[in-house]
Amino acid sequence: MSTLITNLGSLVTNTGTPLTDAAVVIDGDRIAWVGAAAAAPPADDRFDAEGRAMIPGFVDSHAHLVFAGDRTAEFNARMSGQSYTAGGIRTTVAATRAATDAELEANLTRFIGEALRQGTTTIECKSGYGLTTEDEARALRIAAAHTPETTYLGAHVVAPEFKDDPAAYVDLVTGEMLDACAPHARWVDVFCEQGAFDGDQARAILTAGAKRGLIPRVHANQLHHGPGVQLAVELGAASADHCTHLTDADVDALAGGDTVATLLPGAEFSTRAKYPDARRLLDAGVTVALSTDCNPGSSFTSSMAFCIAVAVREMGMTPDEAVYAATAGGARALRRTDVGLVAPGARADLLLLDAPSAVHLAYRPGVPLTAAVWQGGVRKV
Amino acid sequence: MSTLITNLGSLVTNTGTPLTDAAVVIDGDRIAWVGAAAAAPPADDRFDAEGRAMIPGFVDSHAHLVFAGDRTAEFNARMSGQSYTAGGIRTTVAATRAATDAELEANLTRFIGEALRQGTTTIECKSGYGLTTEDEARALRIAAAHTPETTYLGAHVVAPEFKDDPAAYVDLVTGEMLDACAPHARWVDVFCEQGAFDGDQARAILTAGAKRGLIPRVHANQLHHGPGVQLAVELGAASADHCTHLTDADVDALAGGDTVATLLPGAEFSTRAKYPDARRLLDAGVTVALSTDCNPGSSFTSSMAFCIAVAVREMGMTPDEAVYAATAGGARALRRTDVGLVAPGARADLLLLDAPSAVHLAYRPGVPLTAAVWQGGVRKV
Repeated sequence: MSTLITNLGSLVTNTGTPLTDAAVVIDGDRIAWVGAAAAAPPADDRFDAEGRAMIPGFVDSHAHLVFAGDRTAEFNARMSGQSYTAGGIRTTVAATRAATDAELEANLTRFIGEALRQGTTTIECKSGYGLTTEDEARALRIAAAHTPETTYLGAHVVAPEFKDDPAAYVDLVTGEMLDACAPHARWVDVFCEQGAFDGDQARAILTAGAKRGLIPRVHANQLHHGPGVQLAVELGAASADHCTHLTDADVDALAGGDTVATLLPGAEFSTRAKYPDARRLLDAGVTVALSTDCNPGSSFTSSMAFCIAVAVREMGMTPDEAVYAATAGGARALRRTDVGLVAPGARADLLLLDAPSAVHLAYRPGVPLTAAVWQGGVRKV
Repeated sequence: MSTLITNLGSLVTNTGTPLTDAAVVIDGDRIAWVGAAAAAPPADDRFDAEGRAMIPGFVDSHAHLVFAGDRTAEFNARMSGQSYTAGGIRTTVAATRAATDAELEANLTRFIGEALRQGTTTIECKSGYGLTTEDEARALRIAAAHTPETTYLGAHVVAPEFKDDPAAYVDLVTGEMLDACAPHARWVDVFCEQGAFDGDQARAILTAGAKRGLIPRVHANQLHHGPGVQLAVELGAASADHCTHLTDADVDALAGGDTVATLLPGAEFSTRAKYPDARRLLDAGVTVALSTDCNPGSSFTSSMAFCIAVAVREMGMTPDEAVYAATAGGARALRRTDVGLVAPGARADLLLLDAPSAVHLAYRPGVPLTAAVWQGGVRKV
């Protein structure tokens, strides 16, 4: 079964400059043909895009979607200038541990569905709200049923039971917990930050994960300058995520390695923090990804379009660069060559916008612009 | 025909603190009853909100929706750091003049529908892209078929034909053009700004409009400090819009008068300009409204939720204050007592959120949260 999507006002392929008057042929779960509408081959079915713009489905390479509860009160207090001394991540850990598998899965599928309706066709999902062997493995088992991009983040924060003995928690994360989680995960991640895990701990955790076949990625340099970015590059991590506080040496390291800088403007938006400087990274030749960081504490958005708009407003990205980062950049951060582009052989993950060009994702902030979504060749929205 | 909407997780009425476990009864186009779900009276029909939050429909008191074309290239150049010397507002004026009535009406209804799907049940609409007697009257005639809140903005900028004789253009705006437009408008507005109209011209235009029964509102103090805010208060304008550059005397004037300060963060977002200081106005006792300023040049968003999120992030508003400003504040700016609140006798304009509280409008930026919309008692979304 093949489908010709024709009369595209513009088409972002990420393999060259955007095409106008373009068409795409889907065959099964793959893209079979891309080119000028006038030269399109025949297909079983036909979809008239009526001049709308198409881009690859968004690739959201950083999200925390296995959790229970929310943190409305904490957000409201923070944004109302009130102090709030409740537990942050630990609040979500308690709610997540108390939830049933079915509750966690219902939450996860709700957020994946919400993201899909906004054009996200590939989404990464981390553990990190269980912090026991059983609860971390459970989170990854549930996530793995819904996305191939699962990340073991037992090292999100030190579990409350280990607050007086963080070394013992690192032993758990690199030992029994890793054994239980590795079968359900593709990636290993660590929050390398003051109050979470230092450089030596992060190195131990990522190295242990890599020995089990998990590929490293790092929460790096979010709240303060730290060793996370340099460690990520040294270990060949797929991505260093956040990258808000960088020295010139950090930027040079990223430019000299294969590690993608994944920027998460939803977090800075929702915590009134300083934004990362995407322009500096791009000018140095670093590959930049944009992702949501969707989580109930610091960035409860699932909207890649919102991240694009903020990145353009605040981080020195052009609209084209931001759209690339939210598609091809995310794919690079997940080491995927089959998504984040529109080319023969790629997965047929496509977002049709209710707009004549992808620039509208930044030009029309907050406006839902999804006209249609195909995932693996199947029209989902 | 009455409908009981019950099992509301929270209900923002704007007549007191939010209710929990609340219900609303709609009868015809009005709200008939508001209170605790357990005490709700019987009704013909029943809608189970399943714990979701309800607020009054958004009141967007500042939008420019009668136009043709868009300004994607201008936006893209601005956000890409390139100079762009095309005509700004005049680009839209040329496209609007060249469009047919049917084209303008199709655009208008598309944007009103887009806004409605995002929860906006009352929307103001200005002329200002015609700048001839015929084209301004046409814009207002088209707008008046779709909203009662129509604003004569012949004084948007000096028409290109009058660039060497702005005084003659003011004569036209206060004479023949006003005669043609007044029957189709409720409000008169002027862009009081360097490069547009100065204080004396603005006074002449607003006074002439008022003599024809139009109520003044003013584009004031957007790009620079100027006389707009003081003039608005002096003339008893319903609203001074933008209010970005204010002296203490301006704030005092607003606090001492009945003029609402309507803040339009979409404009600052999309032009990388300084945001207005909502906190300063609120602390002085000024009534603040939030609106989109939806237009193809400086703020092409129709999302009131986006404006709420930015106002909380950037302008010192609490989530509750921002939601109030986007509903009750907008109603005050349009001198409407029948919208912007949930109370017996008010219009049944209601937004059900796909969230348990209205705080989520700021907590979940960019995420479409419309679960259902009633307008005049009719379920529209």
